Amino acid sequence: MSKALPKRKENYSEWYNEVVRRADLAENSSVRGCMVIKPYGFAIWEKMQRALDDMFKATGHQNAYFPLFVPKSFLEKEEEHAEGFAKECAVVTHYRLKANPEGKGLIVDPNAKLEEELIVRPTSEAVIWNTYRNWVQSWRDLPILINQWANVVRWEMRTRIFLRTAEFLWQEGHTAHSTEREAIEETERMLGVYSDFAENWMALPVIQGVKSPAERFAGAVETYCIEGLMQDGKALQCGTSHFLGQNFAKSFDVKFVNKENQLEYAWATSWGVSTRLIGALIMAHSDDNGLVLPPKLAPIQVVIVPIFKSEEELAKISAAIDPIINSLKSAGISVKYDDDDKQRSGWKFAEYELRGVPVRLGIGMRDLENGTIEVARRDTLTKEVMPRENIAEKIVSLLDDIQKSLFDRALKFREDNTFIIDTWEEFTERIEKGGFILAHWDGTAETEEKIKEETKATIRCIPLNSVEEAGKCVFSGRPSAKRVLFARAY
Amino acid sequence: MSKALPKRKENYSEWYNEVVRRADLAENSSVRGCMVIKPYGFAIWEKMQRALDDMFKATGHQNAYFPLFVPKSFLEKEEEHAEGFAKECAVVTHYRLKANPEGKGLIVDPNAKLEEELIVRPTSEAVIWNTYRNWVQSWRDLPILINQWANVVRWEMRTRIFLRTAEFLWQEGHTAHSTEREAIEETERMLGVYSDFAENWMALPVIQGVKSPAERFAGAVETYCIEGLMQDGKALQCGTSHFLGQNFAKSFDVKFVNKENQLEYAWATSWGVSTRLIGALIMAHSDDNGLVLPPKLAPIQVVIVPIFKSEEELAKISAAIDPIINSLKSAGISVKYDDDDKQRSGWKFAEYELRGVPVRLGIGMRDLENGTIEVARRDTLTKEVMPRENIAEKIVSLLDDIQKSLFDRALKFREDNTFIIDTWEEFTERIEKGGFILAHWDGTAETEEKIKEETKATIRCIPLNSVEEAGKCVFSGRPSAKRVLFARAY
Repeated sequence: MSKALPKRKENYSEWYNEVVRRADLAENSSVRGCMVIKPYGFAIWEKMQRALDDMFKATGHQNAYFPLFVPKSFLEKEEEHAEGFAKECAVVTHYRLKANPEGKGLIVDPNAKLEEELIVRPTSEAVIWNTYRNWVQSWRDLPILINQWANVVRWEMRTRIFLRTAEFLWQEGHTAHSTEREAIEETERMLGVYSDFAENWMALPVIQGVKSPAERFAGAVETYCIEGLMQDGKALQCGTSHFLGQNFAKSFDVKFVNKENQLEYAWATSWGVSTRLIGALIMAHSDDNGLVLPPKLAPIQVVIVPIFKSEEELAKISAAIDPIINSLKSAGISVKYDDDDKQRSGWKFAEYELRGVPVRLGIGMRDLENGTIEVARRDTLTKEVMPRENIAEKIVSLLDDIQKSLFDRALKFREDNTFIIDTWEEFTERIEKGGFILAHWDGTAETEEKIKEETKATIRCIPLNSVEEAGKCVFSGRPSAKRVLFARAY
Repeated sequence: MSKALPKRKENYSEWYNEVVRRADLAENSSVRGCMVIKPYGFAIWEKMQRALDDMFKATGHQNAYFPLFVPKSFLEKEEEHAEGFAKECAVVTHYRLKANPEGKGLIVDPNAKLEEELIVRPTSEAVIWNTYRNWVQSWRDLPILINQWANVVRWEMRTRIFLRTAEFLWQEGHTAHSTEREAIEETERMLGVYSDFAENWMALPVIQGVKSPAERFAGAVETYCIEGLMQDGKALQCGTSHFLGQNFAKSFDVKFVNKENQLEYAWATSWGVSTRLIGALIMAHSDDNGLVLPPKLAPIQVVIVPIFKSEEELAKISAAIDPIINSLKSAGISVKYDDDDKQRSGWKFAEYELRGVPVRLGIGMRDLENGTIEVARRDTLTKEVMPRENIAEKIVSLLDDIQKSLFDRALKFREDNTFIIDTWEEFTERIEKGGFILAHWDGTAETEEKIKEETKATIRCIPLNSVEEAGKCVFSGRPSAKRVLFARAY
C-alpha cells in the first residue's frame, strides 16, 4: 500500500498538495508558475465548463473569442485597470528567434523587436472594449452578451496549484448595455448563476456580497463576489461579477445613440470563474483519505469492482453486472467497470477512494449467490450489502443523496464556523482559529488596512443579505450600520 | 437591401472576405494578425469541437492542459523542430510593466527581465514531451493518449482570416507508445478520424496521403494529411497527423522499461486540426449569395419566418407553428423562430441566406388557411410549398438530404477538377486554371522545389490509395513508381 496522506489537522497545506498529486489532478510544470492539468483534473474542469456554459446560454449569452495579446497602449487606457495589472504582466517584445551566431542554440533576433509590446492577457476588458467600439452604434445593437473561455496569465510571485497560478483557465463574460440599471441587473444575475453553480453543482455554500472599495477589481465601480469557507477556516473567493459603469466605454470610446436620440456611453459588466474552483472543490469536501467529489462533477460517478480469482469467476460476475451497468448508463450515470486483473481489489478500493469516486460497488462470488452487492459511499466511508434487485434505481437516488449530504455538511461546517464578534480582543483570538467573522466596520480603507496588518484578515465582502443594525466598528469603535464578513483568505 | 456580395468568379478572395464579414463569422482585430471570432463563427467552432471531441474520446483519448509558454531551451532540444518554428515565435522577455518615469503611461520594467525567454507555444511537442518524461517508466505507463484544446501563436507575416492567423485555436493530440507499430497505427487512426469528420460532418471530400519530406512537420518522421479542394481550384490542408518516431523521446529523454526488461525510448505521434477548418467550410460550399453550411455544423439548422401584418396574425401563425417547433426540437434540430417585428420578412430571408441556414420555413396567412408551409433549401436555393402535416419529419430527412447533397456536389467538383497529367506543358497550362493534378514525380526535393518555383504548385501529398504505376517524372522525365497530388494551395 502507498503511504497515507498527511492529515488535514496536522498540515493542511501539505495535505492539499498531496491530494492534488495522488488523485492525479495536476502537477507543477517546468514553466514557472504554470501547471499541467492532468486528464482526471481536466475531466472535472470539463464537467464544470459544461454546466456553466449551459447556464450562460440559458441566460442569453453566446461564446466568442478575442485575441490573446493586449497591446500595451490598450491596457493603458483605463488608468486604474492598468495600474492593477501592470505589476504582473507577461510581455511579448520580439517575434522571432534565430540561430545563435556565437554558438549553439537559438537567440532572440534583435531585428525582430515589436514596435509596441504585447501583453499576454491578464483579463480581456481592454481588448474586448476596443472591439465593441465598432459593434455599437445604436441602442438596437445592445445588449451585447458575450462570454469567452480562455487562458489568462498573471505573473504571480507566489503560486499554488489551482488556487493561484501564473497561467490559468477561466471564462470571462463581457457585456455591454444601454442603461445603468440593466448592467447592474446583469451583474447581479451572473452572481446568482455563480452562486447557483457553487451550491447546486459544487455542493459548496457561498456568501454573496460586494467587495469593499479596496478589494474591488481594477476598473470596476462595484465588485460582487461569492465567498466559500474551506475546511481550514480560510475563505476562498470563488467567483466575481463586476459592474464596470461607463469606465471602459469612456476609455475606449464606445458610444451609442439611445432611444432619445442622444449619444451616450455604454454600460459594462464582466464576470469570471476559473480553474481555481477545482481547488475550492478539493478544499471544501475532501478528507484524510483523499478526494471527495460531489456526484454532479465527478468524472466517474460509480465504479464497480469485481472480486474474482479466475477468469471463469470474472465472466460470471460480469454477466450479472452487465444489466446494472446498462441501467446506470441509461440513467445518465458515468460508470467504470474495473475488471483489470493486474491490480488487486484492495488496491483498487484505495485508489478510487483517493480519487473521490462517489459510489463504489463491490461484487464477489458470495454476492452472486446471495443476489447482493456491496455499496460503499465515499462521503461517509460507509458500506452496506444490499440486494441487487433494482440496485440501479437505488444508486441514482443515492447519488442525489450524496450531493445533498455534501452540501449540508459544508453548510453545517460554515455555520459552526461563522462568528458574530463585537470586541477587538475576541476578533484577534478568533481569527487565529479560522472561520468567518461577522463584525462591524467603520467603512474606512484605513481601518480595513490596519485590521489586515494586525490580523491578516480581510473584508471578504459586505454580504447582500446583511441587515441594517447600528453598531460600533470592532477596531475603531466608530459607528457602523451593518456587519461585514472578515476572514483570512487564499 | 444591402449590396450584393462580390462574385466568386470575379474576385474569389474578396468574396471570401465579404462572406466572413457579412455572415458575421469573424473580423480582424487591432492586434496584428489576430482575429476576433464572433458568436456566429464561434458557434460553428463549438459544433466542430463537440463532434471531434466525441470522436477523440471514442478512440480512447482524454483531454488535458499544458502550459502556454515553452522555455527557449525546451524548443531548442529537437533541432529540426526548433529550426522549423524559430522564425515565427512570439517571445516573452519580461514579466512586469511600470509607470513611465519620464511621462505618462507604462513601460516595460527593465528590472523584470526573465532569465530565460519564454516562447508562446506554436505547438506543444516540446512542453508536453518534457512532461511525459516524468510520466513514463514502464511499458505499463503506455500508451499515453492525450489531446489538448488550446490557442497557439505563429508569427505569420501574411495572414488571412481563419486560414492563416498569428493566433489560432486548435486541438493537438500528443500520444506516446511502446512500439513503433502502435504509434504508426495511432497516426493512421487519427488521420482516419479527421477524414471521417471532414467528409461526414463538413461534407468535404478529402484525399488522405503522406507529405513529401520537404513538406513534413518539423521534427516528424512522417506527416500524414488530408487535403481538400476549394471552389477556386486551390488545395487546402485540412488536418495533419504526424508519426514522430523517437525524435522527441530522445530529445527529452523519455525512456521506459519494455516487456523484455530493456530500456527503450518511447514512440510518439501528434495530430491537429484548427479554426482553419471554418475557412475550409466556407470555401468548399458557399455561393454568391453567401454562406452555405452543412446541417450537421450549422448553429441554426432551421429558421422559421412568420409573415404577418398584425399582432393578431402573428399570434395565429405562432399557434400553428408551435407544435412544429417542438417536434423539430425533440428530434434534436436547432430551430430559430424569428418573430421579430422590427425587420421585414424579405430582409430576414436575405439575412438567413447570407448566414447559410440550411432550411428556411416561411408561413403566412394563406398558408394557415391552406394547411401549407413554404420550405426553402439553402444549398439549391429552391423553394416548395408543402402540406404542414408531418412537416417536422420531412424536415429531418431534408436536412440529411442536404448534408448528403453538399458532399456529393463537392465530390463531383473535385472529380471534375482532378486531372491526370503526363507532360510538363499540360501541367503548366492546367495549374493556371486550378484543380488537383495527379502526376509522376521523381522523388527528389530538387525537382519538387523547381516545380514550385516555376508554377507555385506544391506536392499536396502522396495519396494513400495511389497505385504503383511505372511512369516518368512530369518535370525531369526520370523514372517514377507512382503519381503524387499537385496543386496550388492555401
